[in-house]
Amino acid sequence: MARRPRRQPTPLVQDRPEWRQLRHPFAPHALFSDDEIAGIHAMALRLLEELGLSILLKEARDILAIGGASVEEDMVFIGRDMVEAAIASAPASFRLCCANPLRDLQMENGALLFGPGSGCPNASDRIHGRRPGTQADFENAVRLTQSLDVLHTLGPCCEPQDIPVHLRHYVLMQSQLTLSDKFPFIYGRGRAQVEDGFAMIRTALDLDEETFLNNAWVETVVNTNSPRLIDRPMAQALIDFARAGQVVVITPFCLSGAMAPITVAGALVLQHAEALGALVLNQLACPGAPAVIGGFGSNVDMKSGAPAFGTPEHVQMSIGTGQLARHVGLPWRGAAGAASNTADMQAAGETHMSLWGNLMANAGMVKHAAGWLEGGLTFGFEKFINDVEALQTIATLCTQPDTSADSLGWDALNEVAPGGHFFATAQTMNRYETAFYQPLVADLSNHGAWEKNGSLRSDERATAIWQQILKDFTPPPGSTERAARLEPFIARRRAEGGAPILD
Amino acid sequence: MARRPRRQPTPLVQDRPEWRQLRHPFAPHALFSDDEIAGIHAMALRLLEELGLSILLKEARDILAIGGASVEEDMVFIGRDMVEAAIASAPASFRLCCANPLRDLQMENGALLFGPGSGCPNASDRIHGRRPGTQADFENAVRLTQSLDVLHTLGPCCEPQDIPVHLRHYVLMQSQLTLSDKFPFIYGRGRAQVEDGFAMIRTALDLDEETFLNNAWVETVVNTNSPRLIDRPMAQALIDFARAGQVVVITPFCLSGAMAPITVAGALVLQHAEALGALVLNQLACPGAPAVIGGFGSNVDMKSGAPAFGTPEHVQMSIGTGQLARHVGLPWRGAAGAASNTADMQAAGETHMSLWGNLMANAGMVKHAAGWLEGGLTFGFEKFINDVEALQTIATLCTQPDTSADSLGWDALNEVAPGGHFFATAQTMNRYETAFYQPLVADLSNHGAWEKNGSLRSDERATAIWQQILKDFTPPPGSTERAARLEPFIARRRAEGGAPILD
Repeated sequence: MARRPRRQPTPLVQDRPEWRQLRHPFAPHALFSDDEIAGIHAMALRLLEELGLSILLKEARDILAIGGASVEEDMVFIGRDMVEAAIASAPASFRLCCANPLRDLQMENGALLFGPGSGCPNASDRIHGRRPGTQADFENAVRLTQSLDVLHTLGPCCEPQDIPVHLRHYVLMQSQLTLSDKFPFIYGRGRAQVEDGFAMIRTALDLDEETFLNNAWVETVVNTNSPRLIDRPMAQALIDFARAGQVVVITPFCLSGAMAPITVAGALVLQHAEALGALVLNQLACPGAPAVIGGFGSNVDMKSGAPAFGTPEHVQMSIGTGQLARHVGLPWRGAAGAASNTADMQAAGETHMSLWGNLMANAGMVKHAAGWLEGGLTFGFEKFINDVEALQTIATLCTQPDTSADSLGWDALNEVAPGGHFFATAQTMNRYETAFYQPLVADLSNHGAWEKNGSLRSDERATAIWQQILKDFTPPPGSTERAARLEPFIARRRAEGGAPILD
Repeated sequence: MARRPRRQPTPLVQDRPEWRQLRHPFAPHALFSDDEIAGIHAMALRLLEELGLSILLKEARDILAIGGASVEEDMVFIGRDMVEAAIASAPASFRLCCANPLRDLQMENGALLFGPGSGCPNASDRIHGRRPGTQADFENAVRLTQSLDVLHTLGPCCEPQDIPVHLRHYVLMQSQLTLSDKFPFIYGRGRAQVEDGFAMIRTALDLDEETFLNNAWVETVVNTNSPRLIDRPMAQALIDFARAGQVVVITPFCLSGAMAPITVAGALVLQHAEALGALVLNQLACPGAPAVIGGFGSNVDMKSGAPAFGTPEHVQMSIGTGQLARHVGLPWRGAAGAASNTADMQAAGETHMSLWGNLMANAGMVKHAAGWLEGGLTFGFEKFINDVEALQTIATLCTQPDTSADSLGWDALNEVAPGGHFFATAQTMNRYETAFYQPLVADLSNHGAWEKNGSLRSDERATAIWQQILKDFTPPPGSTERAARLEPFIARRRAEGGAPILD
C-alpha cells in the first residue's frame, strides 16, 4: 500500500496576498422587503425633521444651521433635502491608503474588510490574566494584527491606560506607524489630538499636504450617544476628519430594548436616522469626504439589561443595516462580537453567529472581528487567535474552488479501486502541498495523541501561538524610517505638554 | 428615572411549536455555475457507467442486473437511463410521521431539520469523563433530544456498548419509542435487526400493515464505503427500507484527499455518483420509496490524514452537494460536525462553520447538529447543550421580524429624550416579556458577577443544564401505552435469541 504523502507543518504566519482585499462570496440576504426598507428610511427622515438630534457642539450646530437645519438650543432639525444632498455627495467607493501600498484597500459595498476587536479598556491572556490595558498590550495587539494578512485595518484594540490621556494618542499612533503598515486609527477625542494624529501620519509617511488631504490615510469611529445625541468630541471629529479628507466610520450603538426601541425595525429607524444625521454634518463640513455608515446594533437581555451579541436580533440588525446602506448606496460597517466573559464556547458561538450575520448582510467593514470579549470591555489574546481561525476560513471561502478538467479527477477516480484511497494518486501528489486550508489553532490529532500532548483546549493552545507570533515578529519595511521621522515631532509635542482631550 | 422592567427567568426547556418545522431563511448559495454542476453530474453518470460500483450483496446485484445494469463479479455498471429513472421515481417531498402527529415533518428541499450528533461509539461529560457509550448514556441523549423542540429527528447518538450487539437494536428502539415521540432511527445492520425494528414501530404505535407501509415512520443512514463500494448490510438496507416504505438517507462519506479526490469538484463527482448509484438500487427495490441523498463531505488534514470539519472545504462540499441535489430535484442531507477532542472554542467554531455551510447550502436534514466531537467518535453532553444554543438562534432567525406600524416605534422614539433610554416606554412595556431570543447557556452577566459565580466557562455551565433537563424530564404522552405494547414483543424476541447482524 502506497504511503500517504506527509506535508510539512505550515508556518503560523503565512504570506497570503489573496487575503488582503476580500470581496463577499455570498449574496446579501434581504430580511425586509424593499417597501419595508423604504418605510424604515422614510421614518428615519421624519425623525430627523420632526424629533431632531441633540448636538452638543455649537460649531456643529452652526454648520448645520448654515446648511439649512433649524436649531433650537441643542436640538437640530434636519430636512430630508439635506439628507439627500449628503447621500449624494458622500462617495460610494474610496481607497484606504496604507504605508505599504500593497495593503491599500478599496472600501465600497461588496468589499469585506476585517478589523480587530477595539475600544477595550482591558486586556486579557492566560499568562497575565485580565488587567487594565497597557502600552505593551496595545503594541502586542498591533504586532498580532500586522502579522495576519486576514486582518485589514488596525484599531485601538486595548487602551494603554498606563499612559496619561493627554499623551496617549502619541503612543497609539507611534505604535501603529512603526509596528505596522496597515490602515491606522485615531480616536476622535478632540481637535488637538486629532490634528496631532494627522501630523504624525504626514510626518511618518513623508506626505505633502495635498497628498494627505486628497487621499484617505486614517479612520476614526464616531459613536452617537443613542438615542439622538451627538456629543462634542464626536461632532468635532465629524467636522475635522471631513476637512482633512479622512474617514469617519459613523457608528450609532443602538442596543434594542435599551438605547433603541425594543423591536429590530424600530432600532433600525433610530440607528439609520442617527447615521444619516451625522453624515449630514460630515458632508456639510466637506462635501465628498470619505464616510462609512452602518452601526453596531444588537439587543440587551431583558432579564438583566446586559448587552447581548451573536443573538438572532444581532444578526437581524446587521442584515437590516446592510439593506438600508444599499438603499442609500453608501459603504457601511458592521461588527462581530461576544458578550462572554472568557474564551469559551459561548464566546466562539457569539462571534461566529455575528460574523455570519455580517456576511449575510455584506458588511463592508467587520469591526471587532477578533479578540473582543465582554461586549468590548476586554481584548483577549487567546480569543483573538481563535477568531482569526474563523476569519481565515471565511477568507478561503472568498476564493472559488478549482473547476478545471483536472480538478474533476477522472484519472484519480479511475486509478483507485473500490474501497481504496486517494493518498497516492497523481492528482493528490500534484496538489497535496497546497490543498486545503491549514488551521492556525485547530488540533486535528486523535484523542490519544491529544491527551498525550496535555489535553489542551483551543484557548490553552492559543497562548503558545500568540507568543510565537510575537517572538517571530519583525517590523515591516520602512518602520525604522517612519520611526526616525516621527520621533522629533513627538518629542516636541511632549515637551509642549501634549494635547488635551475635549470633553 | 423609571425602573427597567425585569423579566422572569426563562425555563431551560420551552414549548416552541414554531421551531418544530423550520424552513430555510437564507436563499441557497451557488458556488459552482449551472454548467459546472451539469459537468459534475455528467461525470458522476460516466463514473457509474464506466468505472462502476462494487456491490458486495448478491441480492442487490441481481436486482440491479434485472434493472438493466451489467454485472461482472462484484462490479456493477449502471447506465444513465437507470439513474434518470431512479431520479424520476424518488419523491421530491414526503412526510415523516411521528408517534405524536404534532411532530410530523415534511422533508423536501427548503425544509430544515436538525438531528443530534449520531453514530458515536463514546459518550463524554464533565462528571463521568469520556467512556464507551452505554444504554444509560443513549437514553439520556434521547431524553435531551426529545426535550428540545429545535431538534427534529432522533439518532443513534452514542452506541450502547454494554448491550450485546444481537440485542442492542431492542434497546435503541425501545428508548426512542418510550422516551420520545420524535422521528426514530434504525441501524441498517442486516435484515433480521431491521425487520425487528419495523415490527417494534408497528407494535408500539399500533399501526396496521398498510398504514405502516404507506407512510414513513423511521429512517436509516446508508453509508457507502467510499470510493465506489457498497457493503452487504448497507445494500440490504437500501432494499429493505424501500420495500417497507421507510426512509434511507444515502450518505457517502467522502473525505477529500483520502476516500475521495483531493479537489472539492472531484470529491463531489464521487459523492454524487455513489449517492445516485445507491438510489438506483433503492428505487429498483421499490419505485417511489422515500429517499434522501446528499453526503457528509469534508477534507482530511494532509499533514496527518486526520478528518477535518468546519473547514472551507467542508463548507464548499456542502454547498456543492446542495446544488447537485437541486439539479436532480431530490431532498438531501448535510452535516455539521467538529474534529475537536473537547468542548472548546475549536469545537464551537467547527460546528458553527459547518452549520452555516449547511444553511448556505439549504440542507434539508442537518445531521450531527448537536453534541458531535472528535469527528463523531464521541457524543459530548456539554457540547450538545452549547450546540443547541446555535440551533435555537438559527430557528429564531427562521421567523421574520415584526414590521407592523407599532414595531417601527415612532411613539417610543418620540417619548424618549436624547441620551435617554427605552426601558420604560409603552412599546417596551408591551413587549419586554417576549422580546428577544432567551439564551440557554450563554451567560450575559458582567465580569464581576461572573467571577462571583465561579468564573465558569460555558462548557462548565452546560453540565448543570443537561442535568436539570434530565431531572425535569417526563416521557411524552402515550409513552406508557407504547411501552406496554412493546414489552411482550421484545421479551419474545429476546427469548428467541435476538437477531444477528449482517457482516
